[in-house]
Amino acid sequence: MPAPRPAVLLLSGGLDSTTLLALARAEGFAVHALSFRYGQRNARELEAARRIASAAGVAQHRIAEIDLRMFGGSALTSDLEVPKDAEDDGHIPITYVPARNTIFLSFALAWAEVLGATDIFIGVNALDYSGYPDCRPAFIEAFERMANLATRAGVEGTSPLHIRTPLISMTKAQIIAAGVQHGVDYSATLSCYDPDEQGRACGHCDACRLRARGFAEAGVKDPTVYRPS
Amino acid sequence: MPAPRPAVLLLSGGLDSTTLLALARAEGFAVHALSFRYGQRNARELEAARRIASAAGVAQHRIAEIDLRMFGGSALTSDLEVPKDAEDDGHIPITYVPARNTIFLSFALAWAEVLGATDIFIGVNALDYSGYPDCRPAFIEAFERMANLATRAGVEGTSPLHIRTPLISMTKAQIIAAGVQHGVDYSATLSCYDPDEQGRACGHCDACRLRARGFAEAGVKDPTVYRPS
Repeated sequence: MPAPRPAVLLLSGGLDSTTLLALARAEGFAVHALSFRYGQRNARELEAARRIASAAGVAQHRIAEIDLRMFGGSALTSDLEVPKDAEDDGHIPITYVPARNTIFLSFALAWAEVLGATDIFIGVNALDYSGYPDCRPAFIEAFERMANLATRAGVEGTSPLHIRTPLISMTKAQIIAAGVQHGVDYSATLSCYDPDEQGRACGHCDACRLRARGFAEAGVKDPTVYRPS
Repeated sequence: MPAPRPAVLLLSGGLDSTTLLALARAEGFAVHALSFRYGQRNARELEAARRIASAAGVAQHRIAEIDLRMFGGSALTSDLEVPKDAEDDGHIPITYVPARNTIFLSFALAWAEVLGATDIFIGVNALDYSGYPDCRPAFIEAFERMANLATRAGVEGTSPLHIRTPLISMTKAQIIAAGVQHGVDYSATLSCYDPDEQGRACGHCDACRLRARGFAEAGVKDPTVYRPS
């Protein structure tokens, strides 16, 4: 039996990347999971990522330390208030972290090159993307093209690199249904932008609302623990 | 008088990025210089970067802490021996750090977005590039295209972002001549991959050899302090 092919997978500990991990494992990849401590307010998601990686049987799980607070500009990494029950006004929300997916994918690219992996998995989603520019298919395609010019693969003509985004055109309900089919336990995942100290979700931020609607539409019981409001 | 436009500039403390800084200042930019402590053996270059940024009168100088050693794969961030007096055999040298410029540019992109800067300066060079894939014009063009899709500019149609590479087609001698014309003091710069504890250059690694040849060809006295061999 040949050794499973390595893949690098960006794992936040949220619903999407946990589903992504189940799909990559189902394809037979030896998953090298990468998480980031980037100054996010919600550092609890890293504990969730650790438990999820361990339960899924990844080949390796590493947490990169980078401090995106040094640049400011986002409610997720600063003292700006996370908006609650906000209307979608067509603008990029304050929870957007400048260039975050570009930075995350760049680190994944470095690891993929060292491992000789040709697949990088990222759980971006173009439907429920909350207006983030770096979740759009055009961005992913441009990153993939750049990545193939950035690395040994581009110079030496070896296997090209693929940015894999199996969730990109799925609704949250479809993502949940796919995860349930692959045995994902969503009670371990954390999506809330602003959980309390016990890790209970606020129920009102964009991430909580998208998640709750997804469970309802998928007809799956929502296992999220919400704090009393 | 309008306020000078901000630009982000990647500053290593070497000869190329120091020249780059002089060129950006000459264009009238308020330079936000960005350096990285990335686990490089040669951490002395950061001291050089600090002195150079201060002497050039930058608007800000920040050092981002990222640990590229976590992925391994390069002589510049591990215990692998830096090659001395190596022949160019057409292969990518062991001093290549996987995806380094992609990661550096991604951080610069985040800062540029927060500052509202439309120009990012990087001192890559396609002639003396030692075979690094991420110094080629095709890589820079692909990164610029991706960057414009990754950020607010891409979604909101505001000013596009430019990756500025004024050194890309210059020889080392031309770079040195341009720097001297703009008053650069090269004695403050450090290029060696493997300096000793007093910051003296080895004189034999790729970086030292390219630099020494550049001074000779430019007809400029080499101010580098070499250690006795």
